[in-house]
Amino acid sequence: MQDRTYTADTEPGDDVTVAGWVHEIRDLGGIAFLILRDTSGKIQIKFEKDEMDDDLVETGLDASRESVVKVSGAVEEEPRAPTGVEVTPESVEVVAPADPELPLDPSGKVDADLSTRLDNRTLDLRKEDVQSVFEIRSGVLNAVRDQFREFDCTEINTPKIVATGTEGGTELFPITYFGEEAFMNQSPQLFKQLIAGSNVERVFEIGPIFRAEEHNTPRHLNEATSIDFEGAFCDHQDAMDVAEGIVKAAYEAVQENFGDELEAIGIADEFAVPEGDFPRISYEGAIERINATGELDEQLVWGDDLSTPAEEALGQDVGGHYFITDWPSEIKPFYIKDHDDDPELSTGFDLMHPRMELVSGGQREHRHEKLIEGFEQQGLDPDQFEYYTKMFKYGMPPHAGFGLGGERLIMTLLGLDNIREAVLFPRDRQRLSP
Amino acid sequence: MQDRTYTADTEPGDDVTVAGWVHEIRDLGGIAFLILRDTSGKIQIKFEKDEMDDDLVETGLDASRESVVKVSGAVEEEPRAPTGVEVTPESVEVVAPADPELPLDPSGKVDADLSTRLDNRTLDLRKEDVQSVFEIRSGVLNAVRDQFREFDCTEINTPKIVATGTEGGTELFPITYFGEEAFMNQSPQLFKQLIAGSNVERVFEIGPIFRAEEHNTPRHLNEATSIDFEGAFCDHQDAMDVAEGIVKAAYEAVQENFGDELEAIGIADEFAVPEGDFPRISYEGAIERINATGELDEQLVWGDDLSTPAEEALGQDVGGHYFITDWPSEIKPFYIKDHDDDPELSTGFDLMHPRMELVSGGQREHRHEKLIEGFEQQGLDPDQFEYYTKMFKYGMPPHAGFGLGGERLIMTLLGLDNIREAVLFPRDRQRLSP
Repeated sequence: MQDRTYTADTEPGDDVTVAGWVHEIRDLGGIAFLILRDTSGKIQIKFEKDEMDDDLVETGLDASRESVVKVSGAVEEEPRAPTGVEVTPESVEVVAPADPELPLDPSGKVDADLSTRLDNRTLDLRKEDVQSVFEIRSGVLNAVRDQFREFDCTEINTPKIVATGTEGGTELFPITYFGEEAFMNQSPQLFKQLIAGSNVERVFEIGPIFRAEEHNTPRHLNEATSIDFEGAFCDHQDAMDVAEGIVKAAYEAVQENFGDELEAIGIADEFAVPEGDFPRISYEGAIERINATGELDEQLVWGDDLSTPAEEALGQDVGGHYFITDWPSEIKPFYIKDHDDDPELSTGFDLMHPRMELVSGGQREHRHEKLIEGFEQQGLDPDQFEYYTKMFKYGMPPHAGFGLGGERLIMTLLGLDNIREAVLFPRDRQRLSP
Repeated sequence: MQDRTYTADTEPGDDVTVAGWVHEIRDLGGIAFLILRDTSGKIQIKFEKDEMDDDLVETGLDASRESVVKVSGAVEEEPRAPTGVEVTPESVEVVAPADPELPLDPSGKVDADLSTRLDNRTLDLRKEDVQSVFEIRSGVLNAVRDQFREFDCTEINTPKIVATGTEGGTELFPITYFGEEAFMNQSPQLFKQLIAGSNVERVFEIGPIFRAEEHNTPRHLNEATSIDFEGAFCDHQDAMDVAEGIVKAAYEAVQENFGDELEAIGIADEFAVPEGDFPRISYEGAIERINATGELDEQLVWGDDLSTPAEEALGQDVGGHYFITDWPSEIKPFYIKDHDDDPELSTGFDLMHPRMELVSGGQREHRHEKLIEGFEQQGLDPDQFEYYTKMFKYGMPPHAGFGLGGERLIMTLLGLDNIREAVLFPRDRQRLSP
């Protein structure tokens, strides 16, 4: 691929051709500066009106903001320039002019509401802080995959068009598939189990999931990225180890590789990799601690699910990531295994950030008979899931796993207010385009 | 995560606990062997009937094939064993029994048709050759991502639920999205362009695409994995460089890391990394070469699309990967840019494997007016795509990119007969489950 000159790589003495967007033009009279921006940063282009060709000066200084221009010239040291260098142009070409009426100000000086920003994502992403979120997102996905490979996992891709949902017919988007009813998959759960039960044993998948939830909150999406793990011969403690390792790997990669981006987002000072082991608090212990905070109007009793205020009270009390383990069996789905010595208690766990739940996982029910019972107890027809259950008759090993919300990981890692800030083109009740 | 003993890692002198599937039992009378299989390979467990506890012998030798068993014991050297070692068991536990009537023979001794295999993918994946395909698939995706990062690309995720298709209403699966009509996306095309036009500039995505094509052939899927690239300030030559680099990186990674898997698939001898540059043959040159082969009943004329027999004739003639460039504009979609000096010729290109097309790409039309004209010429209503076209008014740089069929890459790389061999759970006209 032909070499491209990034503005950030230019050195005094270079003859360069740089291309990017007109970020700003500062006209001081006899001298004027065009600040050119590309993916790597910004560079100052100097126009000395009396000493340069009129056409060249006009082309450069008449370019509207956000137009794409290409500039060739010599790089010189200039301590007063933002990056310490500037380019004296020998040629300037407007490659793609921008309408002067911008629907959004990419310099970030004029605020825009989230909806306007999402409608004009191309312009929005020209802001350094927004760009930085998505550079970090890319780096986090990379770090997460590397960590899964460290854990001996094979990457898999499971189907997104399915005949039945993981947990029955609610919250599924229906599709017409060559005249048949089908659905967009809400979780790779059943499919990843089918692969963990084969010779592949330990698998991960990072892919889209689709949930027709009516919720329209700052922490829900109707299309999200799920980071899934499933491992044969693993129990729920192993799955927690993996989940903890994955979350920490994400923080470590950001710490190591994205200092400038954290700076751009404005959180370089407060960002920290979680230290020490994540505490593993039993459900029973959790409700005791929540009740002891006195934050809730009503005391929780055993069997209650944890409301958002309950989670928040506990999150504040713990002050970092933590697991909640040993949930009541009846709150957890049919595919989670109960403890052998106490069928009221499940091996299900959640990994919590103080702000919200990130991960849900557990050891899976691998015994065919128990699995069928589970379907029936949950009011599901096991016959509909025969493609799944029948494989449990042919040597299905004990296995465990989890699903981690990719956007929730990014949102909590970067302290974003709204989960939509962590997705390029979010999908929610109101938003289907772009 | 607790350490697991893989059978392939056992050494004479170790005391181990290994867990896996009963691959085979060989009973020679006074002595019998259980061959235990896990993700890493196989190990021999020796039962000396007269010298061992009856219960232990019975548990081991009565275990049905494909049952999951856990064996503890000492590893000893045994040159006659398949891996040169064997385990003398001190305990044997059947962790998950298998029904003796297996719908598929994972030893591979009894052939099964593809449909039976896909219905029982868990068992199918216990075959070394099938497992190897998916281990390689995982490795190829990893190598492809690494190569994209070498090319300065940022990983993106674009929405799979969309309001309009990339190329109009045909071949789209309709969804009901909270009462509104929506579709499953057939390509990230428009979305990746919107990001390349921002500060992110160079992007890649590996994700599912959905096509409601009626084709039911060994090379079509209705849900496939697309490997997409888009780069600002790139032209079609740059995009070809990237495509070539990505395909070669996949072959190199397989060559370097998957020798055993190639052996298991039975192609270790013929597998080779493509050497030299992929030839770039113009469309005009291609039809001349195809006509010269004499393989077609009718001579091709300028403007014809290339049929499968035409592609095959050229593929045989070239004998390796090659590009076809400079297609007639009218064959290529609206978003492909024409050559500035010849509007009849487009910058669109295809990257071909001798067996089939792998990649379609080109430089994109980045001029707003021309783009709108292109929609109209293709009979599409530009108003429906305003979320996309309007961003071309605000400084859209020249850009280029491509889409590479992930399964076609795996299929051609491994010489698979049917594209369904490259997907865990394929989706086609007939198959929606598992």
